[in-house]
Amino acid sequence: MQNLLEHIDKFVSLDESEKELLLSRISYVEARKKQFLLEAGKPGYKLFFVLKGCLRLYLITPKGNEQTHQFVIENWWMTDYLAFHNDSVSGFYVQAVERSEVAVLQKSDMDFLLEKIPKLERYFRLCYQKAVGAAQKRISYLFSLSAEERFHNMNDKFPEFVQRVPQYMLASYLDFSAEFLSKIRAGKV
Amino acid sequence: MQNLLEHIDKFVSLDESEKELLLSRISYVEARKKQFLLEAGKPGYKLFFVLKGCLRLYLITPKGNEQTHQFVIENWWMTDYLAFHNDSVSGFYVQAVERSEVAVLQKSDMDFLLEKIPKLERYFRLCYQKAVGAAQKRISYLFSLSAEERFHNMNDKFPEFVQRVPQYMLASYLDFSAEFLSKIRAGKV
Repeated sequence: MQNLLEHIDKFVSLDESEKELLLSRISYVEARKKQFLLEAGKPGYKLFFVLKGCLRLYLITPKGNEQTHQFVIENWWMTDYLAFHNDSVSGFYVQAVERSEVAVLQKSDMDFLLEKIPKLERYFRLCYQKAVGAAQKRISYLFSLSAEERFHNMNDKFPEFVQRVPQYMLASYLDFSAEFLSKIRAGKV
Repeated sequence: MQNLLEHIDKFVSLDESEKELLLSRISYVEARKKQFLLEAGKPGYKLFFVLKGCLRLYLITPKGNEQTHQFVIENWWMTDYLAFHNDSVSGFYVQAVERSEVAVLQKSDMDFLLEKIPKLERYFRLCYQKAVGAAQKRISYLFSLSAEERFHNMNDKFPEFVQRVPQYMLASYLDFSAEFLSKIRAGKV
């Protein structure tokens, strides 16, 4: 869990007893490739932090297609935030893209920790502030870039990521077909 | 500013001196219809809370089209959160859709207030938590519903809103043309 403690330490300082309390309420999960951490239709009361690896958030469209909404790698939190906020069922799946180590925080434990260690409010406020911004950016790319531009933008900014993620997931994230992605990669578009 | 104090009061309790301090650092703006509160390319250090009225966040695509990303009405905060978080220039415009009353919080004042009144961290953490969820929901609608379904979904859930907002803005928010929206409304789709 060292990665999580280091991440928190960038924003707020915890003493040893606070770190101990924190870790007593967060569970550690080793997820194998393709393992589900959250499934659509089930209660969405868990928040996930990637210690190592990569998770994706996706939904199944009414037509039955997987639509990848978001990828997160090390040092990002992820969940269906509306389900988490409203204590409702999730509309999304959270799945390990590769073998991943994940810190899992249940909402009741989060509430407990925020009561006992109020400065964690600041930590989550800052994480969320960045997350809203990232979601806005994501929408702006979907709107303002062509399919090809979305691929090149991603490849320029996150080259390792483009290598790391299966092609069909990447295509669905960029909102085009896997066939189109192959053509772009082959320089045929 | 009573609306803002009431909104905060739903999440955290402030005493009179804290309310006074808060209001001393937040400015009140009456925006006329179409007035800009934030412009793309300018520093994005302000956060906006709608006391009365309606704001929209939009961008200009490389092809020169306005693409409405988000609408907010009473009791929502809005800005370009990545610019706000990173102290960078905004990629979006924030504009009053109708005559609006807006509370404006500058980032330096937010930092000051959070230092003096740490329980406001909780307030913003909860507002942001909901905002990330709303952004995820927005992306899921764009992906999983057809153009016609997006209109009917919006009309069912926010009928007043559909009446209140100019049609071309609504069409751009739902990611189809104003002509297509007219056809849907006329029952021709």
